[in-house]
Amino acid sequence: MSPTLCRPALWVPENTISLKETLNLCRTLHSSHEKLRAVLRMIENTGVKKRHIVQPIDATLRHPGVEARTEIYQRETRRNLPGVVDEALRSANLGKNDIDAIVYVSCTGFTMPPMTTWMINELGFRSDVRQIPMAQLGCAAGGAAINRAHDFCLAYPEANVLIVTSEFCSLCYQPTDSDVGTLLSNGLFGDAIAAAVVRGEGGTGMRLSRNSAYLVPDTEEWISYKVKETGYHFRLDRRVPGTMSMIAPTLSQFAKEQDWDVSSLDFYVIHAGGPRILDDLSDLLGVPADAFRHSRGVLSDYGNIASAVVLAVLQRFFDDGSVPNGGRGMVAGFGPGITAEISLGTWTARAEREEPGETTAQPHHGAGQTAPFRPKLIAG
Amino acid sequence: MSPTLCRPALWVPENTISLKETLNLCRTLHSSHEKLRAVLRMIENTGVKKRHIVQPIDATLRHPGVEARTEIYQRETRRNLPGVVDEALRSANLGKNDIDAIVYVSCTGFTMPPMTTWMINELGFRSDVRQIPMAQLGCAAGGAAINRAHDFCLAYPEANVLIVTSEFCSLCYQPTDSDVGTLLSNGLFGDAIAAAVVRGEGGTGMRLSRNSAYLVPDTEEWISYKVKETGYHFRLDRRVPGTMSMIAPTLSQFAKEQDWDVSSLDFYVIHAGGPRILDDLSDLLGVPADAFRHSRGVLSDYGNIASAVVLAVLQRFFDDGSVPNGGRGMVAGFGPGITAEISLGTWTARAEREEPGETTAQPHHGAGQTAPFRPKLIAG
Repeated sequence: MSPTLCRPALWVPENTISLKETLNLCRTLHSSHEKLRAVLRMIENTGVKKRHIVQPIDATLRHPGVEARTEIYQRETRRNLPGVVDEALRSANLGKNDIDAIVYVSCTGFTMPPMTTWMINELGFRSDVRQIPMAQLGCAAGGAAINRAHDFCLAYPEANVLIVTSEFCSLCYQPTDSDVGTLLSNGLFGDAIAAAVVRGEGGTGMRLSRNSAYLVPDTEEWISYKVKETGYHFRLDRRVPGTMSMIAPTLSQFAKEQDWDVSSLDFYVIHAGGPRILDDLSDLLGVPADAFRHSRGVLSDYGNIASAVVLAVLQRFFDDGSVPNGGRGMVAGFGPGITAEISLGTWTARAEREEPGETTAQPHHGAGQTAPFRPKLIAG
Repeated sequence: MSPTLCRPALWVPENTISLKETLNLCRTLHSSHEKLRAVLRMIENTGVKKRHIVQPIDATLRHPGVEARTEIYQRETRRNLPGVVDEALRSANLGKNDIDAIVYVSCTGFTMPPMTTWMINELGFRSDVRQIPMAQLGCAAGGAAINRAHDFCLAYPEANVLIVTSEFCSLCYQPTDSDVGTLLSNGLFGDAIAAAVVRGEGGTGMRLSRNSAYLVPDTEEWISYKVKETGYHFRLDRRVPGTMSMIAPTLSQFAKEQDWDVSSLDFYVIHAGGPRILDDLSDLLGVPADAFRHSRGVLSDYGNIASAVVLAVLQRFFDDGSVPNGGRGMVAGFGPGITAEISLGTWTARAEREEPGETTAQPHHGAGQTAPFRPKLIAG
């Protein structure tokens, strides 16, 4: 039995900023910028109608320093992550005790120890949970998290892995940067927390068959952080929107290796980095534009929410009921490197082996209801 | 066949600072510190005779800002990592083409994309290598890297995983911090790069049987970074040296689950965080002090080199020839959380299946000499 990626949960902050507000802000803050009109046009073309941000806009625009921003990151993650995790666990029909590893990804807040430590101490995960934090994969980390969780379940077939992504891109806003790539990014990125469980056995959702990764050669500088006293400064090269021509052949080839035709899959969970990525990729793969509707929907409703995008897109396929049982699909996350993290799987609406009560969405927290994948280290 | 952790390679910088120089510096820089005598005594008691640092001491003591330090981190890693990686590959009898995943750990320099991207582009690893960077596990990351590499090979039994750790602790020196924990740390940590390969099949070294992790409850604040404008500020709680009583039962229990008696193993690869950790742990486990001699040797020669310690200690067991074929051993890395990453394995001096030429230490770079664990994404 293959591991199954269950329904993701998503949380976005209450504060929002509309496209109109974004454009007005850009006009006000950069009134004398020589590329202002081009930037405004680019922001309009992102297709982002609204974004959610973890602080009100006035606070977002101030830079209180890296220390204060790190504290906000921790505070807001601690406050809002528990509900997302609980929902993801309910969708997987598992309790905290059933989780064997947590893959925690975020490129917008750095802590040591990682937030997984806090999760174990405060949310009640087992003390022998494997902590797998990855902070350096940017937007590709959503796909990477799914793939590492998949791998973990291949290593330990009875294991369950919780994936968490907490991205507060607004905490990386840099008021003093005004190159075109930065101004575009300021109008593109949004905040969100997402979580999902990969079950080694049982569960409903995307049954994962194979995963892979691909680094586009010599594009290391195209998407990157400049790390400074003021924190992470996001650098976006103008060549990035054109990279799909370098990635599409890999996606086709990977599907082909499983005897699938990439142009006729039943669902596509594509990172919504920006509109051109989606336009180009649907052209290059020969996929109707509508197939990427949920990527466009997430981009429109939340902006680019970094590593949370793929989980948010996948959630919409769970909720719209459009994928038939047995439907074939692909996850493709893109990010710095430039790296693609790719996964193939089959829609499984019913668990192969249902346990008593498994069809209800109630969590069960008792140890031993699913077989632990190895003896627990700690007795009791 | 279980995955095998092959002989690690280690590099340390040319610049050194002796215990005497460290004590003199501490006396000079903190002449009016109210706890000066206690701090000097603690530094003397670390057992660190010398450390290697990536810049001369004058430059080390200056703080040129986070941006400049990040550039030094990248420059020195790029300059010195290739030789370490080549040596690790030779010891595993593999070429770059044979590597399927790179686990790159470091808590002393942050880049996005991670250094794995540079390694693929510049050192000739395959473009479908899985990049697994972990920056938030501190000293425990050495053990975690071994364990995640082990897991990857369990998922893909023909895979080979390269582990790299590049720790320049001296780039986290904070001249304005003068609490006791910081002053002690200033006399304890050193710089190093280490690498090793976990082979899914074949190879000689530590055949990995099982791994686990354990988080000591409610010690999240005991070892941590305060993230500020000036970078990472290392916080070391005075209770840390006493934590072994909380971890030793877990080590005993984990060995017992494999029917091993933790007090009579043939080799112990223990994180040399400080002298008390080693003293307490040998007492608590009922192990003769000499069993930890290589941990003490690494501490004495290099200081605490963070996530590189366990690889440096393991290398000494390869080189002293003290472990008999079939000897049983344990790796235990400790770090923030407080987390222990633990692994058990058996010394395997001869590969079970030797390929032609495998007894020589020459690398082979040709694709296909070992079976790829899955079809390569990129043709040619």
